[in-house]
Amino acid sequence: MPFSYLDHLECSRCAKTWEADYIRQLCDCGGPLLARYDLDAARSGWSREQLARREPSLWRYHELLPVREAANVITLGEGMTPLLPLATLGQEIGIPRLLLKDEGVIPTGTFKARGATTGVSRAHELGVRVLAMPTNGNAGGAWATYAARAGMRAVILMPEAAPVITRNECAISGASLFLVRGLINDAGAIVGQAVRERGWFDASTLKEPYRVEGKKTMGIEIVEQLGWEVPDVILYPTGGGVGIIGIYKALLELRQLGWIGERLPRLVAVQAEGCAPIVRAWREGSAESTAWQDARTVAFGINVPKALGDFLVLEAIRETGGCAIAISDERILDAQRRLAAREGCFVCPEGAATLAAAEQLRQNGWLTGDERVVLLNTGTGLKYPETVRVEVPVLDPGEALPEIV
Amino acid sequence: MPFSYLDHLECSRCAKTWEADYIRQLCDCGGPLLARYDLDAARSGWSREQLARREPSLWRYHELLPVREAANVITLGEGMTPLLPLATLGQEIGIPRLLLKDEGVIPTGTFKARGATTGVSRAHELGVRVLAMPTNGNAGGAWATYAARAGMRAVILMPEAAPVITRNECAISGASLFLVRGLINDAGAIVGQAVRERGWFDASTLKEPYRVEGKKTMGIEIVEQLGWEVPDVILYPTGGGVGIIGIYKALLELRQLGWIGERLPRLVAVQAEGCAPIVRAWREGSAESTAWQDARTVAFGINVPKALGDFLVLEAIRETGGCAIAISDERILDAQRRLAAREGCFVCPEGAATLAAAEQLRQNGWLTGDERVVLLNTGTGLKYPETVRVEVPVLDPGEALPEIV
Repeated sequence: MPFSYLDHLECSRCAKTWEADYIRQLCDCGGPLLARYDLDAARSGWSREQLARREPSLWRYHELLPVREAANVITLGEGMTPLLPLATLGQEIGIPRLLLKDEGVIPTGTFKARGATTGVSRAHELGVRVLAMPTNGNAGGAWATYAARAGMRAVILMPEAAPVITRNECAISGASLFLVRGLINDAGAIVGQAVRERGWFDASTLKEPYRVEGKKTMGIEIVEQLGWEVPDVILYPTGGGVGIIGIYKALLELRQLGWIGERLPRLVAVQAEGCAPIVRAWREGSAESTAWQDARTVAFGINVPKALGDFLVLEAIRETGGCAIAISDERILDAQRRLAAREGCFVCPEGAATLAAAEQLRQNGWLTGDERVVLLNTGTGLKYPETVRVEVPVLDPGEALPEIV
Repeated sequence: MPFSYLDHLECSRCAKTWEADYIRQLCDCGGPLLARYDLDAARSGWSREQLARREPSLWRYHELLPVREAANVITLGEGMTPLLPLATLGQEIGIPRLLLKDEGVIPTGTFKARGATTGVSRAHELGVRVLAMPTNGNAGGAWATYAARAGMRAVILMPEAAPVITRNECAISGASLFLVRGLINDAGAIVGQAVRERGWFDASTLKEPYRVEGKKTMGIEIVEQLGWEVPDVILYPTGGGVGIIGIYKALLELRQLGWIGERLPRLVAVQAEGCAPIVRAWREGSAESTAWQDARTVAFGINVPKALGDFLVLEAIRETGGCAIAISDERILDAQRRLAAREGCFVCPEGAATLAAAEQLRQNGWLTGDERVVLLNTGTGLKYPETVRVEVPVLDPGEALPEIV
């Protein structure tokens, strides 16, 4: 049996196919390339029962991942993150079967590790020596980390306002790090010019085919963790959108493998009110988004004014009967606090937005209350210390503890 | 089969036994109580083959953990953290079979989650409503988090100098948090008085019997991950010492179950030169340590001048043929940088100390180079942003990227 059933690449816009075993970026038409597998062969040569005894990392699904040789896998043990019942909050907001997929429990502390392990592994396999990328912070931290493990050079550009801790990750991993006075699109333009002139590998969102392959494993894991049943709804905080695109891709592949039935979960794209291009396009019934002006939100990871894969996100929510919804920063921070205080889940603001979204969708009747609903938390709140207001009394040695109210 | 084979508690100093199903703190003699299991019953009723299909959390070992009813388990999916080969650094320092057990990949970002899940679960089972503890930061963050999930009140005291991010964890989880102008022992004195006066549960290190039970699962996991073979050496960053005590306890229990053979790994206690009471006691051949004056180190989690369980740590290293070793802050920070840049492992300073220790023990011949050596990294470097020096060039939108050296 092959380690991977990877077959070829296909353009997500024009459907042109490309051989997979060369370094590729975008299609000639500018569309992102997606990895396609020989699912017929996989269906006969591989079964989900084989998974039970494998290690709890996303590489348990290596047949459906793009690396040809096990020796080329660059891993830090990422994946099989917890799927936690939110019994208390679920009861409170009228969705008793509420679950949280917690991507804070992963190397680098965010789901970006998934895209980095598959992206860097495959780049390593194909001989890439230097990669460059713009990032809102967490992707840069993850790719710098995995590049270090691969012995590969990483050039990372992030907005000045990106979370400070992600600078540390890049710097200590030995990446070449630059800040940009602007947003991620400004960083992307500088990277674009540099890769054209210097022949580096462009690891920008969807400009290479393999990051999305790592992200899709979130979808496979949710289904495996539910005993190969799909949930009714998955809410996903959406910036560049690779996660939701990947989850949708995984569901289609699992269906083709016969591992799940016909019905798919409704996928919900959650954005911040201060940067909601997908939500606007969804409301307008457009197939693509237009750039959001003056984008700003405390949920920095989803501060993406115009995503290259916007049309794929809109397709995923349309085809699954999902929707798109925007949340205010105030409600995001309130949801973050409640998840920590009621459930012990200290999530990032992006992840917290999905709780506020579920609550709103329950209130307006889009959720009926009997569905199994999965919130996807994309990272740990530990990487965002500035979102928590802390005022702490200070005692001297020997002083008595004040009364606790 | 019972969910747990917990049988009774036993004093680690005077060997007096206590019934387990009541709230207990220390023995009458002041010694820490340890949980004892009916290992004969476990040996006949339970086998390691049953583990293969269980979820990848430490609760897979529930028969050897102290909670009676599955419904009382307060979990965030902690455990089965990665055991990573360090091929590049291992080669460089002459220990090719070097491994890192990475406790950064766990809820709350440190191994403290293990003690918190078992400690809080059992406290919850026994009816505790309010717990209090002194902490160097990470334990407080973890116990506050798990207490929140249990609906329990947590009162946390930490030194002013404890890592700032751990304040966030406590605050957002709704704990009652206080800072102390002093060290953890000063915080402990204030907690001690408060629990005596107010009848709270004292969750201080080793003052309740169940934190160590969570920590011991690190030892079980390492052995399971190596296919039920023990490594030759485990290096452990030692402050309060509960981790090394727990690992030693796990190894003895596994041996009694017949799951491993007679030979145990040599356990090494790694401390910082600025706070090395265990190392001093070890060199002097003492059975206990004396308080370290003017304790200070960048590895704040092991800044413990006098540990209640010092005699148990010294027993563990003596009985396994291990040793104790102190590392300078300069070498700790250098090891932290090399682990990130060479292996993609952004570890906490405490964890980094174990690499420097292994290197030193290899140089002086204590390690021969053909052993399988496990470094235990107790937490993620993301929680210690102040240990990384970052100076980053800033670009304007449209500016060309400088040459990368």
